[in-house]
Amino acid sequence: MSCDHKNPVVGIIMGSDSDMPAMEACMKQLDEFHVPYEVKVASAHRKPLEVHEWAESAEERGIRVIIAAAGKAAHLGGVVAAYTPLPVITVPMKTSDLGGLDSLLSMVQMPSGVPVACVAINGAKNAAILAVQMLGTGCEGARQKIKDFKASMAQ
Amino acid sequence: MSCDHKNPVVGIIMGSDSDMPAMEACMKQLDEFHVPYEVKVASAHRKPLEVHEWAESAEERGIRVIIAAAGKAAHLGGVVAAYTPLPVITVPMKTSDLGGLDSLLSMVQMPSGVPVACVAINGAKNAAILAVQMLGTGCEGARQKIKDFKASMAQ
Amino acid sequence: MSCDHKNPVVGIIMGSDSDMPAMEACMKQLDEFHVPYEVKVASAHRKPLEVHEWAESAEERGIRVIIAAAGKAAHLGGVVAAYTPLPVITVPMKTSDLGGLDSLLSMVQMPSGVPVACVAINGAKNAAILAVQMLGTGCEGARQKIKDFKASMAQ
Amino acid sequence: MSCDHKNPVVGIIMGSDSDMPAMEACMKQLDEFHVPYEVKVASAHRKPLEVHEWAESAEERGIRVIIAAAGKAAHLGGVVAAYTPLPVITVPMKTSDLGGLDSLLSMVQMPSGVPVACVAINGAKNAAILAVQMLGTGCEGARQKIKDFKASMAQ
Amino acid sequence: MSCDHKNPVVGIIMGSDSDMPAMEACMKQLDEFHVPYEVKVASAHRKPLEVHEWAESAEERGIRVIIAAAGKAAHLGGVVAAYTPLPVITVPMKTSDLGGLDSLLSMVQMPSGVPVACVAINGAKNAAILAVQMLGTGCEGARQKIKDFKASMAQ
Amino acid sequence: MSCDHKNPVVGIIMGSDSDMPAMEACMKQLDEFHVPYEVKVASAHRKPLEVHEWAESAEERGIRVIIAAAGKAAHLGGVVAAYTPLPVITVPMKTSDLGGLDSLLSMVQMPSGVPVACVAINGAKNAAILAVQMLGTGCEGARQKIKDFKASMAQ
Amino acid sequence: MSCDHKNPVVGIIMGSDSDMPAMEACMKQLDEFHVPYEVKVASAHRKPLEVHEWAESAEERGIRVIIAAAGKAAHLGGVVAAYTPLPVITVPMKTSDLGGLDSLLSMVQMPSGVPVACVAINGAKNAAILAVQMLGTGCEGARQKIKDFKASMAQ
Amino acid sequence: MSCDHKNPVVGIIMGSDSDMPAMEACMKQLDEFHVPYEVKVASAHRKPLEVHEWAESAEERGIRVIIAAAGKAAHLGGVVAAYTPLPVITVPMKTSDLGGLDSLLSMVQMPSGVPVACVAINGAKNAAILAVQMLGTGCEGARQKIKDFKASMAQ
Repeated sequence: MSCDHKNPVVGIIMGSDSDMPAMEACMKQLDEFHVPYEVKVASAHRKPLEVHEWAESAEERGIRVIIAAAGKAAHLGGVVAAYTPLPVITVPMKTSDLGGLDSLLSMVQMPSGVPVACVAINGAKNAAILAVQMLGTGCEGARQKIKDFKASMAQ
Repeated sequence: MSCDHKNPVVGIIMGSDSDMPAMEACMKQLDEFHVPYEVKVASAHRKPLEVHEWAESAEERGIRVIIAAAGKAAHLGGVVAAYTPLPVITVPMKTSDLGGLDSLLSMVQMPSGVPVACVAINGAKNAAILAVQMLGTGCEGARQKIKDFKASMAQ
Repeated sequence: MSCDHKNPVVGIIMGSDSDMPAMEACMKQLDEFHVPYEVKVASAHRKPLEVHEWAESAEERGIRVIIAAAGKAAHLGGVVAAYTPLPVITVPMKTSDLGGLDSLLSMVQMPSGVPVACVAINGAKNAAILAVQMLGTGCEGARQKIKDFKASMAQ
Repeated sequence: MSCDHKNPVVGIIMGSDSDMPAMEACMKQLDEFHVPYEVKVASAHRKPLEVHEWAESAEERGIRVIIAAAGKAAHLGGVVAAYTPLPVITVPMKTSDLGGLDSLLSMVQMPSGVPVACVAINGAKNAAILAVQMLGTGCEGARQKIKDFKASMAQ
Repeated sequence: MSCDHKNPVVGIIMGSDSDMPAMEACMKQLDEFHVPYEVKVASAHRKPLEVHEWAESAEERGIRVIIAAAGKAAHLGGVVAAYTPLPVITVPMKTSDLGGLDSLLSMVQMPSGVPVACVAINGAKNAAILAVQMLGTGCEGARQKIKDFKASMAQ
Repeated sequence: MSCDHKNPVVGIIMGSDSDMPAMEACMKQLDEFHVPYEVKVASAHRKPLEVHEWAESAEERGIRVIIAAAGKAAHLGGVVAAYTPLPVITVPMKTSDLGGLDSLLSMVQMPSGVPVACVAINGAKNAAILAVQMLGTGCEGARQKIKDFKASMAQ
Repeated sequence: MSCDHKNPVVGIIMGSDSDMPAMEACMKQLDEFHVPYEVKVASAHRKPLEVHEWAESAEERGIRVIIAAAGKAAHLGGVVAAYTPLPVITVPMKTSDLGGLDSLLSMVQMPSGVPVACVAINGAKNAAILAVQMLGTGCEGARQKIKDFKASMAQ
Repeated sequence: MSCDHKNPVVGIIMGSDSDMPAMEACMKQLDEFHVPYEVKVASAHRKPLEVHEWAESAEERGIRVIIAAAGKAAHLGGVVAAYTPLPVITVPMKTSDLGGLDSLLSMVQMPSGVPVACVAINGAKNAAILAVQMLGTGCEGARQKIKDFKASMAQ
C-alpha cells in the first residue's frame, strides 16, 4: 500500500459554513504536511442523505481518515461514523452560550461500538495532525512528517 | 381527520435495550391514555439504516408523533428528526458518569432548522403526556384526555 | 377539524421585553409558514395573574400550541403548562452569567405529570418549526409545510 | 406587634410527598425553636390553583415566612413568591441525576423584582434557622433564640 | 417594636470596590423603599478583623438585615453570618471566568447551622426587596411597601 | 508494509492498577479483532521516566497506535503524546467525585500541536475499535475487520 | 533555623468530625514522614472565634504549614488564611450532591491577596506530601524525605 | 540555611508566550517582595525534554518553589511535579471556551502521590504570595514580608 498520496486521503466535513473560519487551521496544517484532502459542508440534520452518501462512499473515493466539525448537538461525527469503517476525528465547535461543552459532550460520549476520535474544542489544527498520525500507522512517510513537525516545535 | 386511533400513532424508538426499563413509564402512560403506539429498539450509530428507514416511513405507517430515547452522545432524536416531518420528542437517558447532562445537551441543543422537543432526563412519562398533547392540537378527544388527566392530578 | 387557520393558533409568551429580539426569529418563521400567532409579554413572577389568565383561556381563544420564552429561573413555561392542556414549547434564553444553563435546566427538568417541549438555548426559530410540526399531527397541510421546508433546506 | 406566636407563623410547602424525609430536619428545628408552623404538600405544576390560593392567603392566615422545597425544575418557590409579599425561603432538593444543580439554579436565579432566599441543596435545617432569623428582624425573642442556638453550636 | 426606621436597618457589605457598580441597584431600590441603610466595603480575607467587628456589632447598631456581596470564593456572607444572629442575604457576583458559578456555590452551599439567604448572581435589586420582605415579618408598613411594589410591577 | 501483525501493534498504558477492570473491555475487543497488543501500568506522575521511555521507544518496538487510560488530572495521554509520533487514543476514567468530567477535560483539551484522540468516559471498548480503524488507514485487512464488526452490529 | 521538629509544625484543621475519615490519609502520611502535627476540628461558621484564635496563634505555637479540610461552601481555608502568614493547604471534601465541585470552587477561587494552596477533592494524602514539600523549602531533611518518597513510588 | 536570597529561589514556568500577560502580576509581586526568580516558557507537550530538564535541575539551581502556569489540558504543573521534590504552585489559565474550568480540573485533581498547590484561575499574584509563604516555612524574613503585606492590605 503506497502512501504518497496524489488524491484526497482526508475528508473534512463540517455542519455549517459558519464552521469554516475555525476549520481553516485544519486545512492549512494539512497543506503544510502536503496531505491532500477534500472539504464538504453539510449538516447531518438538514441534509442527512447527502451526509449519508458522502460518508458511505468515502472509503471508495480513497479517503482514509475523516474529520468532522460541528457545534451544539453535534451529531455529524457520529452520523458519519455510523456509515463508514474509516476513523472519524471530531472537532467540537465553540458555542456562544455553553462555550462548546454541548458540542464536546455530544461528540465525545459516543456509545459502545461506534467510536470517534475527539480533539479539543475548536481544535482544528490538532485534527489535522492527528489525521496524519493515523495515516502514519501504515505509512512511514507520514510518521516522518510528524517527527519533523515535533522536532520543529521542540526548538 | 379522525382522531380515534386504531393503529399506532406514536412511534417509540430507543437506542438500546438498556433504555427499556426507564421507558416503560412512557408506554404505561400511553396505555392509560388508550393511545396506540409501536416500539422500536435500534441505535442510530450501530443500525443507522434501520433507523433511517423506520424514521422515513413513520408518517406513512400512520405515526403522528415520535418519541426517541437515548443516552450519552444521544444522536437518535436528531437523526430521526432529520428523516421525518413529524414532531420528535426526545428523552435523554440518565448516564452513570455525568448523570445525563451529556444526553441532555446532545438532544436539546439541536441546530437551527431541525428541532426536537426535549423533556427531562429520564422523563419517560412526560414524553407520553406531551405526545398526547401534540395529538390534541388536531383532536379534541386527545385534549379531553389531557384535561381529565390534569383534573385527576389536581385532586 | 379544519386546519387552514385564520385566527392565531400559536400563542407566544415571553417573560420580558428583553427576550423580544431573540424571539423575532420565531415570529418570522411562523410568518413564513403562514401560521397566525399572538404575542404576549408577561413575567410569571411579576404578573402571575395575567399569565394565569392568558394560559387558562388560550384553548378557548383557539390557540393550539404555546411557545414560552424566559431566562434565568425560567418558570414561565411550567407555569403556563400548569394551566392549559395545550402543548407548551419552551425556549430557554441565553443568560449573561451562566450562558443559559440556568434557563435550560429550569425549563427542561419538569417534574412528572406536566411536561414541556424544550428546544435549544435561544432556539426561537426551531420553536416555530416544532409548533408547526405539532399542528401537523392533525393537519396534513401543516405537515406539508414542514416537508417543503425540509426539502428546501436539503438543497 | 407581638412575637410570641401561638399560631403558625412559618408556612412550609413542598412539591411532593417524596420531599418530606429531607424536610423533616426543617420541622424538627422549628420545633426546637418553639416556632409554630403549618405544612402543605402541593406541586406548583400539578396543583397550581391550590398553590396559588395557599400562597395568596398565607399572610392573612398569620404566616410571616414561607419555606418552599422542590426538586428538578423547581418552580414552587417562585410561584409562591409571585403571590405573596412574604419572604420565601427555598430549599432545592437533591436530584438523582444532576445532584440538585437543576433545583438550585431553578430556584436561586430568580429574575428581577421577585426574590427568593435560597439555601443549600437539601438545606432543610438551615431553612428553619433562616426563618427564625427573619422573624428576628421584628422580634427580640426570636433573635435571642438564634443567639442561644449559635452559642450552643460554638461550644 | 417600631418599624418606621430613622437609622440604618440594613447593613450592606461588599468584598471589593469593584462590586460597587453591580450593587448600586440594591441601594437604589432601598432608597425607593425609603429604608435607611449603611454601606461597608471590606474583604473577609484582606480585612478579617474589620469584617468581624462590623458583623458582630451590627445588631447593636440597629441593623436588622445584612446584605453581603462578594465574588469568586465568596466567603464574605458566611463569615458575617458566623458573627451575627441577623439574617444575611448574599449576592454572588458574576465572575469573568466561571460566570459566577464559583461565587454562587461558595455562598449558597452553607453547612448546617449557619444559613445565608442567597439570591441570584448579581441579584442586587432582589437583595433589597428581600431585605424589606424580611423586615416585613415584624412590620406591617414594610409588608405594605412590598405589596405596593408588587402591585406596580403587575401593571 | 505488511499488516498481518504477529507482534504487538497497539500499546495500552494506564495510570493505575485500578484502571484495569474498566480497561478489560479494550483488551477483549482487541483479542476479538486478533490484533496483538502490549499492556503497561505506569503513572505519568509517579513513574515519569518509565512512561517517558515506554512512549519514546514505542515506535521502535513496532507499536503503531497507543491507548492511554487515566483518571482525574489525567496527564498520561498528553505525556505519552509528547514523546511519540504515534497516534494516542485516550480513555478518560470515570471518577468517584466528578464523574469523569475532570479526566475528560484533562485529556481532550490538548493544546495546539500535540493532539490526542479522546473517546468517551470509560470508553475502553471504543478505544480498541478506534485503534483498529486507525490501523485500517494503511491496511485493508484491518478495515475489513471493522466492516465485519459493523455488519454484525447492524443485525 | 533547625528543621528536625519535635513539636507540631503542621496544623490540621477540619470543619466537621465527618471530615475525619477522609483526612486520616493525611495524618498517616505525615506519620510516615515523621513530621509532627496537631489536629483541630472546628467549623469556621459554627465556631468562628475558636478558628480565629487557632489560626492567629498558629505561628507562635510553632506551626509552619496549615492544612484545612472542609466541604460545601468551604470557607475554612480562606478564613484561616486571613488570620495567619503561614501557607494554608486546602482539601475540598467530596459532597453527596455536587461531588465536591462546590467545595473545590469555594476553596480554590480565592481573591487576590490571600492565596490558599488547593489540592484535589479528598486529596488528603497529597496535602501531607505538599506540606512536607513546603517545609523542604527551608529544610534539606524534608526535601530528602520527599526524594525518598518519590524514589519508592517510582519503583 | 540562609534565606536572604541573591539568586533565583522561585522558578516560574509557563506553557506558552500567551500566558505571559496574565503572569506578569506574579513577577511584579515577587519583585515587590524582593524575591529573585527565573522565568521559563516551555510547553510540556511541545518541548517535553526541555521541561523535564528544567524541572529536574531546578533544585540544584537553587530553586525552592516552582510556579507553573498553563491552560486547557494543563499538564505542565503535573509534569514538573513528577520531576522535582520541590513544591509546585499551579496557576490555571482562563480559557476562551470553558472559562478555565478545564485548566483548573487538569491541575487541581492530581492523583495520589504527586500533589500540586493550585491557586485560582489566573491567580498569578496569589501564586507569588503563596510562594513567599512557602519560603516562610524556613525563613523568618519571608514570613515577615507576608505579615507586612497582610498588614498593608488590612488598612
